[in-house]
Amino acid sequence: MSKGLPKRSEDYSLWYNELVKRADLAENSAVRGCMVIKPYGFSIWEKMQAELDRMFKKTGHSNAYFPLFIPKSYLSKEASHVEGFAKECAVVTHYRLKADPSGKGVIVDPEAALEEELIVRPTSETVIWSTYKNWIQSYRDLPLLINQWANVVRWEMRTRLFLRTSEFLWQEGHTAHETKKEAIEETVRMMNVYAEFAENFMALPVIRGVKSESEKFAGAVDTYCIEAMMQDGKALQAGTSHFLGQNFARAFDVKFAGRNGELDHVWGTSWGVSTRLMGALIMAHSDDNGLVLPPKLAPIQVVIVPIFKSEEELAAIREKAHEIMDALDALGITVKFDDRDTFKPGWKFAEYELKGVPLRLGIGPRDLQNKTVEMARRDNLTKSVVNLEEEDLAAKIKETLDDIQKSIYEKARIFTQEKTTAVDTWEEFVEVLENKGGFVSAHWDGTEATENQIKEKTKATIRCIPLDQVKEDGECVLSGKPSKGRVLFARAY
Amino acid sequence: MSKGLPKRSEDYSLWYNELVKRADLAENSAVRGCMVIKPYGFSIWEKMQAELDRMFKKTGHSNAYFPLFIPKSYLSKEASHVEGFAKECAVVTHYRLKADPSGKGVIVDPEAALEEELIVRPTSETVIWSTYKNWIQSYRDLPLLINQWANVVRWEMRTRLFLRTSEFLWQEGHTAHETKKEAIEETVRMMNVYAEFAENFMALPVIRGVKSESEKFAGAVDTYCIEAMMQDGKALQAGTSHFLGQNFARAFDVKFAGRNGELDHVWGTSWGVSTRLMGALIMAHSDDNGLVLPPKLAPIQVVIVPIFKSEEELAAIREKAHEIMDALDALGITVKFDDRDTFKPGWKFAEYELKGVPLRLGIGPRDLQNKTVEMARRDNLTKSVVNLEEEDLAAKIKETLDDIQKSIYEKARIFTQEKTTAVDTWEEFVEVLENKGGFVSAHWDGTEATENQIKEKTKATIRCIPLDQVKEDGECVLSGKPSKGRVLFARAY
Repeated sequence: MSKGLPKRSEDYSLWYNELVKRADLAENSAVRGCMVIKPYGFSIWEKMQAELDRMFKKTGHSNAYFPLFIPKSYLSKEASHVEGFAKECAVVTHYRLKADPSGKGVIVDPEAALEEELIVRPTSETVIWSTYKNWIQSYRDLPLLINQWANVVRWEMRTRLFLRTSEFLWQEGHTAHETKKEAIEETVRMMNVYAEFAENFMALPVIRGVKSESEKFAGAVDTYCIEAMMQDGKALQAGTSHFLGQNFARAFDVKFAGRNGELDHVWGTSWGVSTRLMGALIMAHSDDNGLVLPPKLAPIQVVIVPIFKSEEELAAIREKAHEIMDALDALGITVKFDDRDTFKPGWKFAEYELKGVPLRLGIGPRDLQNKTVEMARRDNLTKSVVNLEEEDLAAKIKETLDDIQKSIYEKARIFTQEKTTAVDTWEEFVEVLENKGGFVSAHWDGTEATENQIKEKTKATIRCIPLDQVKEDGECVLSGKPSKGRVLFARAY
Repeated sequence: MSKGLPKRSEDYSLWYNELVKRADLAENSAVRGCMVIKPYGFSIWEKMQAELDRMFKKTGHSNAYFPLFIPKSYLSKEASHVEGFAKECAVVTHYRLKADPSGKGVIVDPEAALEEELIVRPTSETVIWSTYKNWIQSYRDLPLLINQWANVVRWEMRTRLFLRTSEFLWQEGHTAHETKKEAIEETVRMMNVYAEFAENFMALPVIRGVKSESEKFAGAVDTYCIEAMMQDGKALQAGTSHFLGQNFARAFDVKFAGRNGELDHVWGTSWGVSTRLMGALIMAHSDDNGLVLPPKLAPIQVVIVPIFKSEEELAAIREKAHEIMDALDALGITVKFDDRDTFKPGWKFAEYELKGVPLRLGIGPRDLQNKTVEMARRDNLTKSVVNLEEEDLAAKIKETLDDIQKSIYEKARIFTQEKTTAVDTWEEFVEVLENKGGFVSAHWDGTEATENQIKEKTKATIRCIPLDQVKEDGECVLSGKPSKGRVLFARAY
């Protein structure tokens, strides 16, 4: 039911939380910070996974699986890596429970303490590079292009469904290369794969860029990223791709015999996207009536709702509906016929709006008589009547789904553009952030000190140094010191 | 390289371990008891997953995702459940690390102890039923048919790749029903789905049956299972499907308003198969040369190895190979052309034998001249020459792959049959177990005491009470007490 869904304009945050729950996407679990992804939400994630997996394999990657646990000592091997993750690690210390001597329930068996504590992986660089050491001897073993679909845990104090949870699902690619050049090419390639996925499937326009030193991944030389703009004017990091240099190869002593016979450390990358993308998908497109899903990721693309008063009327509509379903099936379009008599058409209309089904077909007795079908678009809430004698309905639906996909993207693209403001003074910077939000494109002197001051004063961070940055001389918006180009600031999720 | 692979007849256990490693399926990780599933092994698992997932969805199930962690108190709510799992639980007690005051590495932060310890899920009944409580109010919410693909942890002291590891991958179905009858039907349906998958895809004949009281799942009323016979005469439990009665509904207070308006506890089932199936697949079919994979699960179904001395010869062969590849692609057959010049054909032959590629095509200059191709079957190691002018090669390959799938199954079926022995005396029982192994079909008095004595004396357990058990009066093979039918004993993995 969209009834009672809070309005975005009144409480965006509450609107998001309620939408996620009411549209049956996810809910909080009894375990602090961990979510349950419900079947409808999971079916969207499965569609994302399938497409990303296809793209990874097309670019030469294979899937594998590495352990959930990381010995504590491994995490310490790369200095900045452990510093980045130590504060949010779930730690396994024991391997057995025993009956509580009091007779109630179970307690941790103190005699079953692990010699070395195990960390539930927050990310897998350390356990994977310790394995790569045995897999890589020569340049002939390179490149090594591996991806893993897995759950990871980063202990969070303040969580939000999909956006920030202690456990989340993701994929993490980990590749090893012969040269620095190849590793950087791979890093950029995977950032582009993410950008293409976001734009072509999620209908989500993104900015491609590089993180500043202070925002990069703990252990990386450079972090490439895609950043997207949400409807409340806050940015969301949608995917990252890290050039690791030789950092992890050095930490885990991964060397290879090169073409010249000399030993050298391997060059690495890692890259990941997570169930956070679900949050981006929801926040970028949905409205006060509920979800708006791009057709390419919608578990149900078309729903047929019969409008009937008697079993006879339903029988006649059912016949027509099955005809339509067969034609849509043949085009690979997912369709559901909701002929339940326990719910009224009006209830169903609201329900499928809430769930974001891109196209709804309504068929009543009069439609059968007139040989028409009512078609309602979820994205712009427009309705039209299709005359079945004049138009090929299935072809019309296919075309409309394509148009919805494009329209959703275009709307988000224009929104992102409008929410991107170039400013040259500190007053403008603050004013735009306060009153308009969005990306603020401004000159920055390149120092971490200034970056920190800006964050402290405004809560805005450097989202990225855009790859298409124009080289222009300017003055830092805060310090007035010289700058060679604009970077994008925003408040962010 | 198959060179040096131990023989099954000499050391079956070593043969298995070496095969798993050399065929690039999996290896032990630095984390005790946890394995790394390598890309080639994982690609077989992915094929299994895809097919099982299709079968689950076809029988009306949806995927979802529940938390990795289970509060300790949840585990205790079902008495026999906690008793079954307490001894093998990985326990998370802290959520943060901090710098070691000594300056070296990190230590667990004693100030970051969890109020209640979390168990890394050994199975998810408790966390899922605590969630179902909120999802189920009325009979209209039933049946609830959900599956989860996940990693689980059961701390094991003695581990073996795929067969017994502390962390493993699996799927776990968890369903809730209105009536006992429906829940039992679901339990049996999923056992049958597993059996069909094992037989039709893994080419693995299985016995369908019910576990004895002492072998059933901790928390179940009845455990249905499929049991398979390995080449060394030991049985392997390949999948289980549990009728949970109202046990978990009672433990987590999951009630629904029935059609008569009265409140009652929900009826439950759970069912799972794991990466253990990889072990079964390997042990059932492989030989002293390496893996033997059923074509339906082989990541590469056909490999083309060119036999050439010069770049010109290779070029001519390449042209023919691409022609063949296009024809196989069109039939949905996965083919690899290995034109590396860094390895000799003989090396490649051994390599693809080790990896279990079902069909190998060899093409040399003489083949081009004669318009022939040499075709070698992995399963029975036979070779034949196909005359391309007389036969349609792609069609021939398709037919041969089908034949390999059937032959592998048939071989295993006959083996299992031969390894099943009906005995009527204790002397025979012991003699068969010692000298022949396999399933021993014998009368049993139905008591746990006798079952335990037999296990102690022979290490054989009751694998199952077969569903096709013939009702016949007999005397228990050990106690001599009356029995109504034979059950299957075996030593098992």
